Amino acid sequence: MEEKTLSTRRIYDGRVIKLDVLDVALPNGQKSMREIVKHPGAVAIVALDDQRNILMVRQWRMAAERAMLEIPAGTLNPGEDPLVCADRELQEETGQRAEKLEPLGAFFVAPGYTTEKIHLFLATGLTESRLPMDEDEFIELEHIPLEEAVRRVTAGEIEDGKTITGVLRAARLYGI
Amino acid sequence: MEEKTLSTRRIYDGRVIKLDVLDVALPNGQKSMREIVKHPGAVAIVALDDQRNILMVRQWRMAAERAMLEIPAGTLNPGEDPLVCADRELQEETGQRAEKLEPLGAFFVAPGYTTEKIHLFLATGLTESRLPMDEDEFIELEHIPLEEAVRRVTAGEIEDGKTITGVLRAARLYGI
Repeated sequence: MEEKTLSTRRIYDGRVIKLDVLDVALPNGQKSMREIVKHPGAVAIVALDDQRNILMVRQWRMAAERAMLEIPAGTLNPGEDPLVCADRELQEETGQRAEKLEPLGAFFVAPGYTTEKIHLFLATGLTESRLPMDEDEFIELEHIPLEEAVRRVTAGEIEDGKTITGVLRAARLYGI
Repeated sequence: MEEKTLSTRRIYDGRVIKLDVLDVALPNGQKSMREIVKHPGAVAIVALDDQRNILMVRQWRMAAERAMLEIPAGTLNPGEDPLVCADRELQEETGQRAEKLEPLGAFFVAPGYTTEKIHLFLATGLTESRLPMDEDEFIELEHIPLEEAVRRVTAGEIEDGKTITGVLRAARLYGI
């Protein structure tokens, strides 16, 4: 079933992503090509306060051409431990720090064409952070009861993949 | 909160994706850039047989550098109705046709940098299809009990985002 890479051509080397075009050999020996976006990976955090509200951020997403409601997330620095990244991104985007950060699995967002893997965490025991929040991220913070977040997912009102995954994983953990 | 596009440069125009680099004006008037992968969108199908097994496909994913277990999925043709695409892709990848195809929501896989939106469907009432299966997709079909699929998601054994979402949405529908 394995495809073999015959050659790689770097099309673009940018700020967040790179783009490679690969010539590959299929299992039957025929040749094909693959367009692969190289992404450093990311973290996303399901942060629950003591009233079991989920902390969500609303921000402009040019790819969707609108503002979207999502769980806090951020791109990994090269070689960065996802746990360290999750601790930082949560503070920068929400002003809260978590006493407990537990892994909730990791997944490829679109393994057909991008290497991006998101490491998901559950954050609890929130207290005010002493790190300054990012000033140029243009983010609005919302606290949404977990039950209401589940309702919005089921109703199709939440349109971000990692957020749907995070809300549904948390709902199972808390028996909702 | 809105960002305004000042100019767009097309870096790549390929088989499945295009890549644009945008100069944008941030809400505070400062300038920044955005790297945007243009993708036609896709469908993914949670197909359940009469024994409540979920039909899954294993295929090589070069971006992940391994074979992955996923729900059936496929890229939209230009202008194609997602329902029509789901009906076709299910048949091509599994050899089964669904009497019922119901929408289970749609989501952006990574709205920070790709326009790809996946339309998710629940497929039931499966019967053998008369369409020939794709011969050059190198896909292995597996029937996995929905409960077992949920266990694999929770254990972190399923690493594809759309599959995790599909399994968890179906689990809620069937009270698992």
